[in-house]
Amino acid sequence: MASFVVLGHRADASGDFKLDDICGGAGRLDILVRCVNSAFFLSHGIRKENEAHLLLLGGRDAPRVVTFVGSEIRYLNPDERSTASLIRNALLKDPGPTPTKSSPGVYAAGKSLDALLDELAGKHSFVLLAEDGVDVREADIPENPCFILGDNQDPTEEEIRAISGYPFTKVSVGPLSLHADHCITVLLNEMDRRAPR
Amino acid sequence: MASFVVLGHRADASGDFKLDDICGGAGRLDILVRCVNSAFFLSHGIRKENEAHLLLLGGRDAPRVVTFVGSEIRYLNPDERSTASLIRNALLKDPGPTPTKSSPGVYAAGKSLDALLDELAGKHSFVLLAEDGVDVREADIPENPCFILGDNQDPTEEEIRAISGYPFTKVSVGPLSLHADHCITVLLNEMDRRAPR
Repeated sequence: MASFVVLGHRADASGDFKLDDICGGAGRLDILVRCVNSAFFLSHGIRKENEAHLLLLGGRDAPRVVTFVGSEIRYLNPDERSTASLIRNALLKDPGPTPTKSSPGVYAAGKSLDALLDELAGKHSFVLLAEDGVDVREADIPENPCFILGDNQDPTEEEIRAISGYPFTKVSVGPLSLHADHCITVLLNEMDRRAPR
Repeated sequence: MASFVVLGHRADASGDFKLDDICGGAGRLDILVRCVNSAFFLSHGIRKENEAHLLLLGGRDAPRVVTFVGSEIRYLNPDERSTASLIRNALLKDPGPTPTKSSPGVYAAGKSLDALLDELAGKHSFVLLAEDGVDVREADIPENPCFILGDNQDPTEEEIRAISGYPFTKVSVGPLSLHADHCITVLLNEMDRRAPR
């Protein structure tokens, strides 16, 4: 079981964007949808035990969190456009602080990083992806990890301060700095190898 | 330096498809464009030493090969839509047997798997991705590997026969069967770890 928090620093929380323009107008939402793909897809199924929380910090309705719950998901496809559409539909429901379901396994809520971390801290141990972290192949991965990743920008000082309010460890995925979705693939491959079978 | 051949069993070689419909009308071209992303993107740059050859086996103009050459690429973005657009532009040039350049580092040619393998065999050692292969962490990876992957369908018997005309090894990426683009990410992470620095 793994959870992921992806910090979408400019990702448009309003839902007021075109599906043809998820890189530009939607504030690099493309990065977040690729993270959803990496967090859930296997060749012949869905990683039902995983969850992904996309923090959208751009636009007039920020901050909002769109959450994908693997055990409930039904209409997830691997391509970017259809996942972006699920996210847009969730945002257009104009969610309040209580999570609103827009599709099986897809929820949105008006929520800050602080509130999200507070909610997750009871169930998960935080692991920050960082170039100066312990190589994931050598790292202790806690039982219910919640991996925190930036989008195309590293976490800000303020975000690091928020995370530092909880116990957390740092891991890296190897000698080169990778896109967030590629990091998730490498992390899950390591976890797959350690999982009892 | 790594090369990738991705077998797009239904991918439309004509270029006659809509960018909004790369999963459906374009015959799962979405899988191939994600493989391009995985083969080339680092956080802060392009893997210039890599090449990707997409074999498009669907539609009236099949077979065709669209090739991305890392050392020459200039207008590659990580999102699916823009890469699909590069592929469509390459196909719409109506390429013959000689590779036609449509954008820096992007070429198309009317070419079969046999012809592609014949061309690559001189420079590369073939490595087939297969669930019964040697785990990549334990495998000998040749100096100039050319990894061969299926899209959402395994290589056909005929394709395996074509590959068997050359020396090749088989590797797997771990205990679970992954999407082709995720396999590429895991392979390159292993190669990154072995590369002299």
